[in-house]
Amino acid sequence: MSATMRMAPALLLAPLAACATVAPAPVAAPVANPPAGMQYLYGSGEGAALSVQAWNALLAYVSARVKARPADSVVLAEGARLAAPRFVPCGDKPFAAVFDVDETVMLNTGYEYHDAKTGRGFDAAAWDAWEKTGEGAVGPVPGADHGLAALRGLGVTVIFNTNRSAANADSTARAIKAAGLGDAVHGQTLYLSGDDAMGSRKDGRRATIAARYCVIAMGGDQLGDFSDLFNAAQPVSARRDATLQPLVAGLWGNGWFVMPNPVYGSGLKGGFDDIFPMDKRWAPPAIGEK
Amino acid sequence: MSATMRMAPALLLAPLAACATVAPAPVAAPVANPPAGMQYLYGSGEGAALSVQAWNALLAYVSARVKARPADSVVLAEGARLAAPRFVPCGDKPFAAVFDVDETVMLNTGYEYHDAKTGRGFDAAAWDAWEKTGEGAVGPVPGADHGLAALRGLGVTVIFNTNRSAANADSTARAIKAAGLGDAVHGQTLYLSGDDAMGSRKDGRRATIAARYCVIAMGGDQLGDFSDLFNAAQPVSARRDATLQPLVAGLWGNGWFVMPNPVYGSGLKGGFDDIFPMDKRWAPPAIGEK
Repeated sequence: MSATMRMAPALLLAPLAACATVAPAPVAAPVANPPAGMQYLYGSGEGAALSVQAWNALLAYVSARVKARPADSVVLAEGARLAAPRFVPCGDKPFAAVFDVDETVMLNTGYEYHDAKTGRGFDAAAWDAWEKTGEGAVGPVPGADHGLAALRGLGVTVIFNTNRSAANADSTARAIKAAGLGDAVHGQTLYLSGDDAMGSRKDGRRATIAARYCVIAMGGDQLGDFSDLFNAAQPVSARRDATLQPLVAGLWGNGWFVMPNPVYGSGLKGGFDDIFPMDKRWAPPAIGEK
Repeated sequence: MSATMRMAPALLLAPLAACATVAPAPVAAPVANPPAGMQYLYGSGEGAALSVQAWNALLAYVSARVKARPADSVVLAEGARLAAPRFVPCGDKPFAAVFDVDETVMLNTGYEYHDAKTGRGFDAAAWDAWEKTGEGAVGPVPGADHGLAALRGLGVTVIFNTNRSAANADSTARAIKAAGLGDAVHGQTLYLSGDDAMGSRKDGRRATIAARYCVIAMGGDQLGDFSDLFNAAQPVSARRDATLQPLVAGLWGNGWFVMPNPVYGSGLKGGFDDIFPMDKRWAPPAIGEK
């Protein structure tokens, strides 16, 4: 890190505020710039490189698995614990890779523009309208369009498991297609919230998919895209620690592929006591804080 | 994504504001929660998984390269262009891996606590004090401590190339050691801003390192950790596109390893017109915006 980099956003405020004033009339008060997380995920080279890096790793991993069929799927078996993972056996089931949709394979550029411009935060009605009408304002996560096409070329069935509503299955399939991510058929290669009685929890849908396929890779931007066990009630720091225990840590980039999303979701939680342990706090000695 | 996830941060504000009030007295007005980027990078399981995934990919890549010596280093040769990359030859030079320090191998937890708590934004004097006195409040990026130890075990020299000041070489080496990242010797395995006349630009230091070593991997959280060419004056969208052109896109996860950092740096730039293309904007039809 350099002072130059650190100060760059501040230095840019003036000229970019000018840009913003010529943007379409916002619903609420105008905002100078999009939030930092959106700049990073939707606009930066760093964010794009991070996504492409994950897709490169996923393709290398899947190519090897297709050549040497694994005994087990990467979907946790019913009753498995993160501390002692057990997986659904593959048998001779056909290969599949299972992906979340939003901010995993598809960027919701249009919705996030609306979100940032209005500054209203998440609005369930607006999101439902987005699921229904957003197909013209989406794009692929960098590397996802090429990545999914390559998986299909390897004979791997691409299955989407998203918390978009089953009521909007057709428009979501159209958005996936419009983003260059190929075909999605509800109940076959597209699973949605409302397909079962588990709401936004995806373990049930994963079990249904793993009963039909040998799932050799999963991708998501949220821990719930890999196992609902991560979202059991627990402190923020315990949830982070759960991703780092040896048998789970070994899965990241080896069957479980996480995509960056600092814009929304279960990773954006925690107060100062959750994020900054008491023994890792600091203040400039001159100021005499701490 | 689910409405639940989307709304969680808002729902948490109340209880966490309570936590914040019992935190050490802030210098400025108290802030309810750390910024979203800090929650993600320093506190989330998603952010931790993303880092571990990168380190797993790096170790797999380096292990293969150590077994089959490559003809070229992953450091761009002088005069190379991103559109037509050429690399420094390896010859029979010993293997090395080159890493940025801040938010690549080491988390600046203490400084970011101060930054978030005061809400002052980057302060060069405070950062200099941090370089001098922060060793007690740092930690490893998830996976970096194990990763660097494993590299050394493979006979790969670990070299740090950071924009911390050469004037603070000793305290930076102490911080690296304190974070569990091993030894760093200025001029041998630690390169700093001020070592040459190029300021925060790292190409000169990379050339010096690549003259002595066969650099088989580089890691960083900023594009400038791989090549200064990314930071040539250009629009935000062109800089992002530069990471996605075929010959560069193939390097992410294959020699060039990017670590997540939505907290600060060259990725956090851009106004609405940079981040949200005119043809990817949307508003709820009911509201009739757009």
